[in-house]
Parts: sequence; C-alpha cells; structure tokens
Amino acid sequence: MTTSFSADRTDAYDATRRTARSSAVPVVPSRSSRRSAGVDQMVLDEAGFWGRRQGVNRANTLAHCQEWMERLGWLENFDRVGRGDETVERAGWMFSDSEIYKLLEAMAWELGRKDDDALGASFDALVARAAAAQDDDGYVSTAFGHPGLEPRYSDLAMGHELYNLGHLLQAAVAQLRSRGEHELVQMARRAADHVCREFGRGGREGICGHPEIEVALTEFGRATGEVRYIEQARLFIERRGHGSLAVRPLLSAEYFQDDVPVRDAESLRGHAVRALYLSAGAVDVAVENDDDELLDAVVRQWKRTVERRTYLTGGMGSRHQDEGFGADFELPADRAYCETCAGVASVMLAWRLYLASGEVQYADLIERTLFNVVATSPSDDGRTFFYANPLHQREAGEEASAGVNMRAEGGTRAPWFDVSCCPTNVARMLASLSAYVAAVDDDALVLMQYAAGELRLGGFALRVETRYPEEGRVRVHIESAPEKEATLRMRVPVWADGATVREPGAPARTVVTGWLDVRRIFTPGDVVELDFPLAPRFTWPHPRIDAVRGAVAVERGPLVLCIESTDLPAGVGIDDVRVDTAAEPRADGDGARVRVDILDPEPPASSCPPFGAPAHPTVRDEAEITLIPYHRWAERGPSTMRVFTPAADGTNTPTVEVALQP
Amino acid sequence: MTTSFSADRTDAYDATRRTARSSAVPVVPSRSSRRSAGVDQMVLDEAGFWGRRQGVNRANTLAHCQEWMERLGWLENFDRVGRGDETVERAGWMFSDSEIYKLLEAMAWELGRKDDDALGASFDALVARAAAAQDDDGYVSTAFGHPGLEPRYSDLAMGHELYNLGHLLQAAVAQLRSRGEHELVQMARRAADHVCREFGRGGREGICGHPEIEVALTEFGRATGEVRYIEQARLFIERRGHGSLAVRPLLSAEYFQDDVPVRDAESLRGHAVRALYLSAGAVDVAVENDDDELLDAVVRQWKRTVERRTYLTGGMGSRHQDEGFGADFELPADRAYCETCAGVASVMLAWRLYLASGEVQYADLIERTLFNVVATSPSDDGRTFFYANPLHQREAGEEASAGVNMRAEGGTRAPWFDVSCCPTNVARMLASLSAYVAAVDDDALVLMQYAAGELRLGGFALRVETRYPEEGRVRVHIESAPEKEATLRMRVPVWADGATVREPGAPARTVVTGWLDVRRIFTPGDVVELDFPLAPRFTWPHPRIDAVRGAVAVERGPLVLCIESTDLPAGVGIDDVRVDTAAEPRADGDGARVRVDILDPEPPASSCPPFGAPAHPTVRDEAEITLIPYHRWAERGPSTMRVFTPAADGTNTPTVEVALQP
Repeated sequence: MTTSFSADRTDAYDATRRTARSSAVPVVPSRSSRRSAGVDQMVLDEAGFWGRRQGVNRANTLAHCQEWMERLGWLENFDRVGRGDETVERAGWMFSDSEIYKLLEAMAWELGRKDDDALGASFDALVARAAAAQDDDGYVSTAFGHPGLEPRYSDLAMGHELYNLGHLLQAAVAQLRSRGEHELVQMARRAADHVCREFGRGGREGICGHPEIEVALTEFGRATGEVRYIEQARLFIERRGHGSLAVRPLLSAEYFQDDVPVRDAESLRGHAVRALYLSAGAVDVAVENDDDELLDAVVRQWKRTVERRTYLTGGMGSRHQDEGFGADFELPADRAYCETCAGVASVMLAWRLYLASGEVQYADLIERTLFNVVATSPSDDGRTFFYANPLHQREAGEEASAGVNMRAEGGTRAPWFDVSCCPTNVARMLASLSAYVAAVDDDALVLMQYAAGELRLGGFALRVETRYPEEGRVRVHIESAPEKEATLRMRVPVWADGATVREPGAPARTVVTGWLDVRRIFTPGDVVELDFPLAPRFTWPHPRIDAVRGAVAVERGPLVLCIESTDLPAGVGIDDVRVDTAAEPRADGDGARVRVDILDPEPPASSCPPFGAPAHPTVRDEAEITLIPYHRWAERGPSTMRVFTPAADGTNTPTVEVALQP
Repeated sequence: MTTSFSADRTDAYDATRRTARSSAVPVVPSRSSRRSAGVDQMVLDEAGFWGRRQGVNRANTLAHCQEWMERLGWLENFDRVGRGDETVERAGWMFSDSEIYKLLEAMAWELGRKDDDALGASFDALVARAAAAQDDDGYVSTAFGHPGLEPRYSDLAMGHELYNLGHLLQAAVAQLRSRGEHELVQMARRAADHVCREFGRGGREGICGHPEIEVALTEFGRATGEVRYIEQARLFIERRGHGSLAVRPLLSAEYFQDDVPVRDAESLRGHAVRALYLSAGAVDVAVENDDDELLDAVVRQWKRTVERRTYLTGGMGSRHQDEGFGADFELPADRAYCETCAGVASVMLAWRLYLASGEVQYADLIERTLFNVVATSPSDDGRTFFYANPLHQREAGEEASAGVNMRAEGGTRAPWFDVSCCPTNVARMLASLSAYVAAVDDDALVLMQYAAGELRLGGFALRVETRYPEEGRVRVHIESAPEKEATLRMRVPVWADGATVREPGAPARTVVTGWLDVRRIFTPGDVVELDFPLAPRFTWPHPRIDAVRGAVAVERGPLVLCIESTDLPAGVGIDDVRVDTAAEPRADGDGARVRVDILDPEPPASSCPPFGAPAHPTVRDEAEITLIPYHRWAERGPSTMRVFTPAADGTNTPTVEVALQP
C-alpha cells in the first residue's frame, strides 16, 4: 500500500490527468465535496465480516460465474457473432451479454484491489472474445442486429440492447479507474459513441425498457472526461415517462417507469431494479447538470419508498409478479420479492444520494441493505445464491437443482438461474465494497460502514479493528494523519441508541445517532473507540403494514434476526410460536434468544374455516428459542423461517392515545 | 312450464332414450342418487337477485362477448382455417377458440331455458363457422396444425389444444341436454373420437397443460352414452402428476399439477383454475369408475384447500404470479388473485362433490362463492367484468380502458381482456345456474340455494318467494307434490345460527344448520317458511393468516361486506379507520354500519420507518360508517376498498386459554 493519495479533487475528475489508481471507485461526481475510498485504499481484513466475503468472491464466485456462462453458451454467443456464424441457435436470454460485462466489472475491481496474473489473463481473454463481436460502428449485441437475429433496436421495450451496453460501460469504468486504458475501454468508447450517434439529437427518440445505460453513460463520461456521454444520459432520462415503450400483456408503462417522467413521480414504482437503476442514473445526471429539481424529485421518491415500500431488511420489491414495488405499505413477508439485484441497486442509489448530500440516512440504509440483503444472497462458499429474499418461508423448499434453476424462490440458494442477474451483481458489489465503507468530505475522513481493515484516504492512514457486527466495539487506530486539524467523521447508526465514543485522552461519552465528528490534530498512535450497543431489540412494523400486523421482529445491531425451523424444538413449527414481548430478548452469539408461547398446531375449529369466530389457540408450552442473523438462514438445508413473528399479546399497538375531537 | 319430469334416473342416463329436455343440466353422474334441476325446471324470477343477473346475461353479456370476439378476429380465426387462408396472422392467444365454445355453451343453456329464434340463429351461425374449421379427422384448432402454424400437439404444456376441445365438448353437452342433436354435437363427436384415437392406448402418452378435456370428456361420455370418452378422461387423469409436461421459466410442474398424481396430492396447488378443473374431472372419473380412492383424494384436497387456501369470499388463488394457490394460510387481501374463473371452477368442483356425497358443506361453499365471487365479476349491465377479485384495494385504479385490458387488476371492471376467459365463464355459469339451486335426491327435493322462482322437479311443483339475500325469509309454496310421503330438504346455511322453520300447521321452531328435512305428505297450498337471521356479524380470520391478523370482516347472511372509500367521510381513507368490535354492527339496507375510530392519516415517526418502536396512531375522531356488499364494490367508479379492517383492540385473539404442560 504505497499509493499516494491526492486530496485535490479537481485532479481526480480530470480524466486526462488521472493516474490508473488515483480514484478506483465506481462513482465520481464532478460536483461533490465527497469521494469514496478506492478499491485499493481500503483493504479489508480477510477474517472480518466483509473481508471474508470479498475473499470468497474473488476466490470462488468469479470463476463460478465464468464457468456457468461458458457452459451455457453465453460466452460462445460472442464467439459466434465474432466469426459470423449463423448456424447455431443463440443461447440464453437477450440480456445474457450483460452478465459477461458484470463479471468483467467485478474482475476489474478485483484486479484493481490486488493484481493477479491468472485473473488478469482471464480478464483479457474474456474482453477479447467480447470485442471480437463488436461491429465496426461500435454496436455490440449477440441477440440482435446480425444475420438470423432480429434487427437492431427492433424491441426497445424488452430487447435490453442498451441495458447490455450500459453494463459494458460500467465494466470499462472499473477498468479505467482501477488499471487504466485497455481494449475493454476502447470497446466501450466505440459503443458509447455508437449510442450517442444512434440515440442522440436527430437520431432515434427511443429509450431502453431496462434502465442502466443512463447511469453507465454518466459515469463513463466522468471517467473519460467526455461530456457528450453525460448529455446522452440526460436525454434518456428526460425522454422517459412519456409512454413511448410498447407495453404488452402484464408489462405496463409503470413496469418500465415510462408512465410518469422522473422529475414528476412521487415514488419508486414498477419493476424494482429498473426503478432503482433509473433513479441512480437520474441522480448522476442531476448532479452533473446542477439540476436540483431532478435531484429533489429522486430524493422525494427515495424517502417515500423507504418509508412505505421497503422491508426491514432494506429489501425492495413486494411482488413476484412484475418483480416490482407494490403500493404503499404493501409489504408481505412471505411473498417479499426483495430481489438481490434490487438490494445492490438500492445501495447504488443510496450511495449516490449520500455523495450528493452527505446525509447519514443514506449510509444507514446502505448498512441495512448490505447486511440483510447483499450478505444474505451468497452462500459461505460463494457458489450458490438467493435471488429473492423473502422474510417468511412458509414451506421448506427442496434443495436447489445443481443445474439452472428456473425459479427465484423456494428458500434455497442455487448455483445459477435461468435469469441469472444476481450472482454477477453480488460479485461486482463485493469487489467494489470499499467505496461504500469510507469516504472523504473536504478535510473530513468519513467512516460510513464498519469493517475491519486498513484505510489510506484523505491524508489519513488508519487501521479499523472490530469484530462488527458480532461485537459493537470499533477501534480506529490512527497511523498517520494530516499535520493540521482534521475531522474523523463516524456514523453512529440510527439503531445505536446509547452508543459511546472515547477520544484520545478522554473518558467515554454517550453520543447521539447520526454523524459523529471528532475534530482535532490527530497524531500517530491516537485511538478513537466507538461502542455500539448490541443488545437485541424488538422492532415493530408500522400499523399500516397489514401483512405483519400484530407481529414483531428482533434486530441486533445492523442485523435483522430470524427464527429458523432448524432451531426450534422437535415437533414445533415456525407458525406454532408467539413471542412474549414482555421479556426482553437476550443476546446469544450473534443472534438472540426470546421467550415464546408454543401453540397447539391444530387449527381451531371455526364455522367456516379459516374464517369465523375469534380463534383461541391453545398455548401448550413455553420455551426460549434461538434467533439467528437473517443473512445466515437456510445455510443448514431447506427450512422454514420467519422474521416477523406474532406477539403473544396479539397487538403492535399496545396503548392508543385517544385524542377525540369535541 | 309443462315439461313432465321422470324420476327414473336410469332413464336420464341412457342417451338413446333421452328426450331433449329431460336432463338439461351440465353434470349427470351415472352413479348418484342426486340430480340437479334442469335449466328449464327452475325458472328464476326476473326481479330476484339471480334472476336479474340471468336476464342481464341473456340480454347483454352473450352479445357483448360475441361482438368482442368478432372485433378481435377470434371468430375470423375459424373462418380463415376453414377456407385454408394462410395469409393473415392469427389473432389472439392460442386458447381463444375456447372462448367461442364457452359462449356457445352459455347460448345453449339459454336456449334450453327459453327458446328464441334470433339467439338460435346466432348459435347456428357460430357453430357453422367453427365447424368449417374442423379437419376431416375431427381435429379442430385455429392455432396449430395448419399451414403457417406450429404442428398439432407440438406444445402440450402451453398449446391448450385439448383444453379448447374440452370446451367444445362442454358446449355440445349443453346443446345435447337442452335441445338435442345438432351440428355442434356432431362436431364434438368427431373431436372426441379424434382425441381418443390420438391420445388413447397406443397413441400419444401426453396430457394437456391446462386441464379441461378430462371434465369435458366424462360429461360428453355421459351425455352420449359413449363409455370410451370417459375411459379417455380416466387415462388423462392417471397420466398426470408424473412430470411429463415441459416446464419452462416460471412455470413449474406444480403450476400444471403435473408434480404429484391426483390420487396422491394433499392439497390443491399451482394454477388455480387448472387445479380446480382437474379436480372436477377427477371427481367425474372417480364416480364413473367407483374409484373411492380417487374420490377420497379429491375430497381430502378440497377440505384442506377450503380450510387453508380459500378466502372469506370463497375466492381461490392467492398469487398473481402463476395465478395460483399459495401455501397454507397465505391469503393476502390486497394481492388476492381470486380469479373469477377460479370461482366458477370452484362451484363446478363443489357441486360435483355434492352430487357424489350429498353433503351440505359443498352447497355452503357454492353459496359463498356465487354471492361473493361470481356475482362480483359482472357489472349491473353485464358488459364489464372483474377478472381478479382482491379483498383490499389500496389505490383507486383508473377507469378501465374501453378497449382490451392488459391487466387483471386495478379495481375496475373492464369490458374485455387480453386473456378474456372470465366473461364467457360467468356467462355459462349464469345460464346454467338452476343446476346449483335445486336437486332431487331419491324422493327428496333439495333446495340448495335460495332464489325466487318456480321449480318443477322430483314430482314437486313449487314456488319460492324470497328477497334473499336482502331479506332472510324464504317461503316455499307447494303447488303440487307426490301423492305419497316425500321429503323437502332445505339447506340451513352454515352461518345461519338461530334460523327457524314453520311447517304447515305448526308453530315456528329453531333449527340447526345443515340439511333440514321436512318429511310428510305435502298437499297443494302447503307453505314451508324459513327465516334466516340476517343481523350483520363480525368474522375473524384464523390466527395463522398473517395477512389479516388483527383485522375483522363483517358478513351479513351469505354476503361478505366491505368498506368502500366512496362511503367514507371526506378526507378519511380506508386505511384511516379501525373497527370498534365492542359495538355490534347494525343492519343497514343490504349492508351494515359499524363504529370506527378515525386515525390520524400521518404515519407516526419511527427510528427506521416503516419499522421501529411500537406505533401509537392518534385517534382523531369516532364515527359510524357504512359497509356495502362486496359484490357491489367499485360500481360507483374507481375506489379503494377493504373487506378486513384492523380492529380497534388490535387483536383477533382477545383471550388466550393457557394450558401449560407441567
């Protein structure tokens, strides 16, 4: 770790002056005082919560994804177009190209994090195969625009051509920022130029049914210094919401976010990943254009979405049908879709909003989503994944097929999917995780997330020692610091009531949630110690959420806990228990134990089951049971699971203050 | 009404001896002591609840359906195949043929009910167009098997060819039983013969992805006296459940009920209409073959489905995705799919189970489903329809498009749908409604449902006077009766605690729910009077139904009531009220009034909205509000609506009896 860091942010945004490793982060707004840690600036401890996952991602997931794409012919698609072969039917969905690009993005961040000849050679070989399929004018697709395939842009609503190209650009950004120029970057330039020619002023007035090109063009414009790419992104954003996409059965204009212009919408809606990618792109475009109206529109939508359309886990997307957001407060636990990709996309959006505003709420949601959606998806070995992340599994599924899994549900992690967007999305997020952990904001070094590791950023070199989230203590060892007054800004999570800080030479003091600034002239050897209370706590749903009325969840620090059938006494099902909320939950490892009533499993009789007179289930026993972190559920085989469990008093509104009007 | 009725059931089942009008009912089991009233044997009063709907169906819905199918080219599909025209692209889905056949079935019942030259001419003309498309070997399809189309039976999973043919056979049954031989019946014979040749022993071992051919072949076999059709149905039933259908993304073997053989399954599952049609066919096959194991399997599945997978309305199907059943107790109110067709199919199944067993529970579910699903779908004028029937509408939709509606949701009735199975299903059910109203069982005349009208059946001629379900009094006037002791069997609905009966010359007495037998020698002029208590009542969900925990519904007689935003005070939303269950609901017209708390609409603050500390919504007012019958909701324009509303005490388990084990 000898790379020097320049705090001069104008330097960082001038593509012509950028060195390969000066800003190896996915998003670098031109007009922000904040910038994240590059992939090489935050080195996570391999034994830590995130360091371990990042290591598994590098060691296993990247090769796993590549093997599957080779096996299924998704890579061969490029080879075939490259050699002009029309004889064999194309493999995979029309968006399979994007998976190769997302894998390349993940590899590029990993190579930026730590070089490796074998990985580099794999990367180069994949790029060569993809580049061979590129047309002379920059267009690249294995699903359209070649003999035997439909014509270019003949199905903007569902063709995903620009979506695919967007992921190509994002991969190129990763390469450019982490290692510099490369055949991939040249390929991306040609593609971006093609998009601008084809869809720029005077060209096709269309948009892509799946947003992604917007966020990609903006960042590629930032990374290359080409403002016209950003302008093209702006055009795509402005064109959307006017019903130009061809709707078809079950795919409404809302599904595509083509019902209302971004700047007029009140909430995220429709297909969740589409909505979140679009919003991320809109933030980027707004920031680059000083377009406060557009930025405010996204902030307003985000706020409403978080308050009314977001799960306790941070998961988004209430409907399997449409993979979409539901109405306000439509948050079923059992049919929560909470696609892993929507979790990744939500982190992308919240992070951009943090960079634009510096507000702590975005970092809080990122933490919630990282620990309870992103960390939930991959198995310990990084070779199987959850696609959907429900908060209630009613029936234990079967072990996932070792082959391609058709369905995104069932309560088991699967190695690959028919639509397999999630594995590579997890891979690129874990590879670039450092960006979300730390940032600089003027002369402040900001610790947004807590992960053991070493950080060199903003003139600081420091070591973060912690077993977070298993333990609540975080020790920040200053190894070097600016020789003038500077700020160490640390996030006291929104859940951390009663947190304390101990500054060098001072006794511990209680701090409030939000940003905690420690401002002083730091000297090497200084230690700032945070203590976050990790006592498990009950969390209640908003009374308008019908789906979990009368039920309660248990959280511990940033972790949502769950009851898994595996941990229940023999003969007791997850629906046979009611939590006694009069007794506080007790900590147990990184989980908790709670008192429960065990109910008679036989449904009580009713005149018209399952509806009739009030039911009086019989409590046949009491017990203390274990809850584990949600992100670890189903690791011990198919099971049933609940995050929200009915409370023994049957209510989440224990006392109502009545304020009658006269 | 001069048709004589023969009580000799062997007569009714011998096709060679049947007169056109002797058994004009959709289902005539060979081995049952029970038989329903024919369409001409129960004449409903045009002013009554069902008579009015039957009249509107005849006057408006039949022509409405025909016009749409003409307009969209679904009829032209037949013409084009008939003349061998390959030039124009086929209109509609591959199952659009079935809609013509379902319309023909409805028309045939209506013609059996009351002749009409114009309707008869329309019928004949439609049949001629369909018949012109039939191949010489009996195969008929406008979607497969002709130049420019895929080959016959090349997509058994989703091609719907046998499904379409099944509806052809059902239409032919209606024609044969209500009016006798006809070109349609000949066409159906040729088709049924083709199916037996193609899929019989030694032929294709396949099954159709959408069950329907099974129930149709059995009945067509009964109606024609051809046992081999019934045997072919048996083969289809037995072949199912062995995973022979090609699953594809999002369409699992369970979706097709091809995961487990019918006789081994524990519950209905997968696509609801498919599951219900299959089960109806399985009952028919079981009854014809004295196959108690198969019949018991369906009874077991029905019982579990009704106890755990059925809505208060009788609606079935909890998921939009897959249009399917969910897991046990997965009964979300807002995302209830409850497809109208599944309601029709549930009536079909329950009715067959009644005929097989004589048990009253099936008639109870039929009542629930007729009043709260089937009656809910069509608008007053029979020209718009609900496709899905949710129990909670969170957002007022837009007025349905006057064109083809893409979506099955939105809270407004629509004139037609992209997949438009429901209008014709409602039409054929209303046209044949008499079958579900009355039956004979040996020497008993059974009144299963209460509808004003005149009935000649089982040696009885009687007049039913009632304004049910608006009023609870039912007067049965005997106009003629067998001259020996006979039984009048009347259903005391499961909800009718405290019902009374007054037999001729006796004082009123209280009766228990279930079948009520009045056995005597009836004489003309005798009146039997039933009084069902119609006080509105609170109904609570089973505590395992997470989706409506802590909420309560109001029912009145057979009607489920609902709160519609249209009836709330200005500024009060359906989610701003909580029902005070300490005060009994009061009757109001055919609805009710209940006391409610009106809550402050602002969501209370929470550390991480919408989850956090227990919320204490503020009660800003109290009021009495109106509930209307669910079947009438959304008649006054787009609105929001709830069947289950949170109870003010926040619990549906007020007192729990604790029975601790030592």
